[in-house]
Amino acid sequence: MAGGGTLEPLSEATTGLILSSRIDARELTALLDSHPGIGWIQLPSAGVELYSTTFGSHPKLQWTSAKGAFARPVAEHALALALALLRRLPESIRATGWGEERGTSLFGMHVVILGAGGIAQEIIRLFKVFETHITVLRRGSSPVPGADHTISLPSLGRRMGPEETDAEPDHALADELAGADVVVLAAALTAETKGLIGARELAHMKPECVLINIARGGLVVTDALVEALASGALAGAGLDVTDPEPLPQGHALWMEPNAIITPHTADTEEMVRPLIAARVRENVRRWGAGEPLQGLVDADAGY
Amino acid sequence: MAGGGTLEPLSEATTGLILSSRIDARELTALLDSHPGIGWIQLPSAGVELYSTTFGSHPKLQWTSAKGAFARPVAEHALALALALLRRLPESIRATGWGEERGTSLFGMHVVILGAGGIAQEIIRLFKVFETHITVLRRGSSPVPGADHTISLPSLGRRMGPEETDAEPDHALADELAGADVVVLAAALTAETKGLIGARELAHMKPECVLINIARGGLVVTDALVEALASGALAGAGLDVTDPEPLPQGHALWMEPNAIITPHTADTEEMVRPLIAARVRENVRRWGAGEPLQGLVDADAGY
Repeated sequence: MAGGGTLEPLSEATTGLILSSRIDARELTALLDSHPGIGWIQLPSAGVELYSTTFGSHPKLQWTSAKGAFARPVAEHALALALALLRRLPESIRATGWGEERGTSLFGMHVVILGAGGIAQEIIRLFKVFETHITVLRRGSSPVPGADHTISLPSLGRRMGPEETDAEPDHALADELAGADVVVLAAALTAETKGLIGARELAHMKPECVLINIARGGLVVTDALVEALASGALAGAGLDVTDPEPLPQGHALWMEPNAIITPHTADTEEMVRPLIAARVRENVRRWGAGEPLQGLVDADAGY
Repeated sequence: MAGGGTLEPLSEATTGLILSSRIDARELTALLDSHPGIGWIQLPSAGVELYSTTFGSHPKLQWTSAKGAFARPVAEHALALALALLRRLPESIRATGWGEERGTSLFGMHVVILGAGGIAQEIIRLFKVFETHITVLRRGSSPVPGADHTISLPSLGRRMGPEETDAEPDHALADELAGADVVVLAAALTAETKGLIGARELAHMKPECVLINIARGGLVVTDALVEALASGALAGAGLDVTDPEPLPQGHALWMEPNAIITPHTADTEEMVRPLIAARVRENVRRWGAGEPLQGLVDADAGY
């Protein structure tokens, strides 16, 4: 292999496992149980919520994902969706006549980004070119390079105990969303972030605001989003991911004229192949050399 | 006035004329003839082809336009159209079901820009963020900052005498277009650039290439473009300007699924108002102080 390891059938000598496509979590658990020599598993995607139970049952293994490796095409897609909505391209694409002047410019807008990982950082780089004012909402508290403000929302990563399920809703999140012209979701899907953007959060956004989701569909309560778009409470939604996914034919979201839905292709197979290959090559080298791996999953945080 | 001049009814004392909206060229000529004290005319737009005959009849006057002032929103619109086409958003916007993986990334692509003015320079800045390889085709020969290659095509600005109308077509232009993934038209419309992109030029482009026109509709031969899109010789066209303009209802271009047509709103009234106000304010100050004006029109070149 280019990274220096050897590619072998699974055996007692196997120390590293590279998944080239998603497999069933139970199948993976069984495989790890029967091959105790495995110390490192390279997962094929950036989101790893499918394997969260396996992390728990195998806490001593090193898990690496593609996180960060696909940042460029995914951030590019987020920008493409945002510009398309701000410039009212859905209307132009459907038009059969000239029509009225329309569209707004991204220059100088206030952008709120949820998440602070590799994709969020590349989104900051691309949006900053338009002299936007950028607020990042993250679980941790260290400032994100390039952002004008980093706001720590510990609730984004809080493991709620059963006694906490009636806790106060997160007013800080809704307040931050209220000032945004563009909201971009770039956070991992975890028990804490599931349904983070619901009716209350959408109601706090300005009617001119556009929402972009290039992370995971489950971050948004789909019914609440349909309602916000239909009522004009939100100007548009650019979605590369949906819940459910794939979005079934006939779903109300397909009928919303200000929703752009792309079929989870912010990073296509063609775009990611060279990027994941580079990640695997580098990690094989590092694993062989005993160096720290790239894209290490924080099993406790879930990403 | 903010720039230091005084706003007065037209009189013998008038030395500068600021047009806040387009007026008929003959009306402008008559007005200048009857007010010989006028030494400077500020035009309201970046393109000034409407007044080319008036430049000729009043060669000693200083003409200034909005050129360069609207560069940011116009370049942003060019990027929005290019990303929308590369990411196949027209297909997603019309979709009523999930569909197949689609779209390509702008990262690393080869972009050819026609023109080297303020808008072209801002287009370079925005597209360079995606590590594109940029070739600028221009009339002059000085290298354009930020471009990887500047190619001088003197034919872009040649005033053809009647004896030259049968001259060889411009093979250099077609050859440069052949290597492009994205072609962006950002040149002025002059006698020399009218119909510059015709059947031969379109035939030289790759079938994966997308063509963006945020300059003037007349740069492109519309019938040839419709044919290239319909036959699949060109992957897409993003047009903020058309010929004729407005594009009439029922025109074949409205039916092309890979054409995005926006109604000359790369820079909307709302976007340009503060930008042209700043240009006028600065030029009033400079005119009063006897300093060189911003956006001076080269009457001979026609922009």
